[in-house]
Amino acid sequence: MTRETIAEIEVWDVRFPTSRQRDGSDAMNPFPDYSAAYVVLRTSSGYCGYSLVFTVGRGNDLQADAIRALEPLVVGLPVDDVIGDTRGLSRRLVGDSQFRWLGPEKGAIHMAAGGIVNAVWDLAARRAGRPLWQLLAELEPEEVVGLVDFRYLRDALTEDEALAILRRAEPGKVERLDRLLADGHPAYTTTPGWLGYDDDKLQRLCREAVDEGFDLIKLKVGADLEDDVRRFALARATVGPAIRLAIDANQIWGVPEAIEWVERLRPFDPYWIEEPTSPDDILGHAAIRRASTPIRVATGEHAANAVIFKQLLQSQAIDVVQIDACRVAGVNENVAIILLAAKFGMPVCPHAGGVGLCELVQHLSMFDYLAVSGTQEGRWVEYVDHLHEHFVEPARVIGGRYVAPRRPGSGAEMHATSVESFRFPDGEQWRPGMAG
Amino acid sequence: MTRETIAEIEVWDVRFPTSRQRDGSDAMNPFPDYSAAYVVLRTSSGYCGYSLVFTVGRGNDLQADAIRALEPLVVGLPVDDVIGDTRGLSRRLVGDSQFRWLGPEKGAIHMAAGGIVNAVWDLAARRAGRPLWQLLAELEPEEVVGLVDFRYLRDALTEDEALAILRRAEPGKVERLDRLLADGHPAYTTTPGWLGYDDDKLQRLCREAVDEGFDLIKLKVGADLEDDVRRFALARATVGPAIRLAIDANQIWGVPEAIEWVERLRPFDPYWIEEPTSPDDILGHAAIRRASTPIRVATGEHAANAVIFKQLLQSQAIDVVQIDACRVAGVNENVAIILLAAKFGMPVCPHAGGVGLCELVQHLSMFDYLAVSGTQEGRWVEYVDHLHEHFVEPARVIGGRYVAPRRPGSGAEMHATSVESFRFPDGEQWRPGMAG
Repeated sequence: MTRETIAEIEVWDVRFPTSRQRDGSDAMNPFPDYSAAYVVLRTSSGYCGYSLVFTVGRGNDLQADAIRALEPLVVGLPVDDVIGDTRGLSRRLVGDSQFRWLGPEKGAIHMAAGGIVNAVWDLAARRAGRPLWQLLAELEPEEVVGLVDFRYLRDALTEDEALAILRRAEPGKVERLDRLLADGHPAYTTTPGWLGYDDDKLQRLCREAVDEGFDLIKLKVGADLEDDVRRFALARATVGPAIRLAIDANQIWGVPEAIEWVERLRPFDPYWIEEPTSPDDILGHAAIRRASTPIRVATGEHAANAVIFKQLLQSQAIDVVQIDACRVAGVNENVAIILLAAKFGMPVCPHAGGVGLCELVQHLSMFDYLAVSGTQEGRWVEYVDHLHEHFVEPARVIGGRYVAPRRPGSGAEMHATSVESFRFPDGEQWRPGMAG
Repeated sequence: MTRETIAEIEVWDVRFPTSRQRDGSDAMNPFPDYSAAYVVLRTSSGYCGYSLVFTVGRGNDLQADAIRALEPLVVGLPVDDVIGDTRGLSRRLVGDSQFRWLGPEKGAIHMAAGGIVNAVWDLAARRAGRPLWQLLAELEPEEVVGLVDFRYLRDALTEDEALAILRRAEPGKVERLDRLLADGHPAYTTTPGWLGYDDDKLQRLCREAVDEGFDLIKLKVGADLEDDVRRFALARATVGPAIRLAIDANQIWGVPEAIEWVERLRPFDPYWIEEPTSPDDILGHAAIRRASTPIRVATGEHAANAVIFKQLLQSQAIDVVQIDACRVAGVNENVAIILLAAKFGMPVCPHAGGVGLCELVQHLSMFDYLAVSGTQEGRWVEYVDHLHEHFVEPARVIGGRYVAPRRPGSGAEMHATSVESFRFPDGEQWRPGMAG
């Protein structure tokens, strides 16, 4: 009998013209076109694993090419071996002695590795007939430890410490599973807060968010201080004191500026300040946190790898760990980051929105709840009600909570018709007449 | 009269089959093919600026594509404006709101920005009839400060502090220029130390290096501890106690491992340990330095940007600042790093070797000597005698010292015949019969 192997990696450049409405506008990204380098991994038996790497428009073709470039490293590998050793797969991709020069472990080549690793996880979950969160949560603690490359992490987290964290979470898993299935996982919303929206729209969307059951809303800041003060005061007046309001500067500030700006917004009780400065500036985040406490500091959507997260935690630079499903080298590296967060007692509140990020990252938070942290306290997954219709199993948020997905897989599969019509530059949505 | 504009950016995927001889082999890069995404920036008047982004083989096409992707951001810009405001150019490339998602400020897209910025500097130096080092050294302190984007740096270095550093170096500049022209700039050699070489070759090359006048030699380590101990002992016995021997682990270790390994090599008096762990691990380098002192800690060739260097300096994690001409966003960001190093009193000893890196980075060290640090004490530029013949003005090292280049430009221009015959995959050197 012939063994099933990885036959090909197909990659599509899919872009949504979101800049036409300024959805998703923030201080650093005034006109994003939410995009996906969409991955279809095919096996020799005709099965598929899906994933995507999110980008914001220009450069999505480069991201797609970076994924294609890694194809020769995996084509021909036996599917069972790859699924049975995703750490090995990840090392093979991340550690390639020539490609790693383009990183190492950062940027397009690292996200490309993540795209392939995540497609393998999607395939693995489909085979197991499980949504990814469940597949992960059902692994034995030893198996979870076996997913992680500890090479650069041992000074902060050893294999034994990780195992102890996972074992500590074993009791109560069944009850948590019941609760997750009944009540889902907390979400927060960024829908009201984009910089491109006017005051009326901001207020209306804040009211709607509260009515829909959200208890945490995030506003973009950082373009103009007086404007931020006005918008934040308005939002606070609209939602009242009980709803948490977080702010997100998308890296616009230097360290001293961040400290001053946050100080000015302090009267309106921000729950966290997100991405106050360069995502590489660990010491800068630590300084901002010391100055801004008790306002929490959050970052991670642009943190390139687990080594950056390790240091953010070691130096007490952040209160909120914002993993992203597509920034690092896939599920395995995100499991490492979730374990690091647990070691340092910090909550994981994933970055989402974009396109497909909600669908993907909810699985990781549900795994975290069931098998690692054991709690939903202080933990929300970002949610934006946007572009979900393109996915076979759209993320569902009801009453401010993500409903646990039930289909086998990781949630990444898109409708073929969406891929076809938003394909860049030749899909029908990108034909000259369609430009807004 | 029509203004001269940037007309096009031509990019060539040029690769040298160095893996056939294992030149350049180290613990992380067993089989590199030294490569260049080679940039020719053409103006509407037919003038050219040259640059390159160095890679180690696979992925060089992606790097070339990343540079091409940025072409629309610069084509049509007036050449005078671009040369007159390279900080603005750099911000335009690095800060593009869509492309930056692939970084930000790291990986292929950041190096692509550097490729374009450096080509503009090459053009500027040709126009001025000056080698780049001289063009930079002749700028007024205010002009040098104007090259730097301080957004993320002000908590460590302000504009005023940078200006004071530059002004402090003004006296004696003329004498230093004379000395530079007469005696050049110190070099160190990595030629003897590649892991792929046997003991005889190691000893022979060490002897030759000393005979040629080098007083610092670097050996690769990290693949096998007993092997390293043997090789290092052999090298020390060969060169005697007066010659400095540095070691380079190319990121192979975690933090505790690095500390143990360096301890085992301590008896042979290593001058510095280079890249002991992940280039992103600022706190890790600081821990290694605390444990290994007085052995110096060096890193930087894979440090993605000035924010990483800022923190390495702020946290006293390194003793030696190893800038690379092609890793960051070009001359402007390297000037920032050189100023940061001066602020913290640490020597800049650039990474070179590869292909074209010696030609390029010598200019930055000569500028540093003339206009920033004012000294060559403890400062060497890496040198490997390899692939220089492909450059119009090859780097020249005589008696262990770089001879100051005299041609106008940055040193990046390659012979057209070399580009043609090493073009990948269709140059004659890559035809089937040529494979070793």
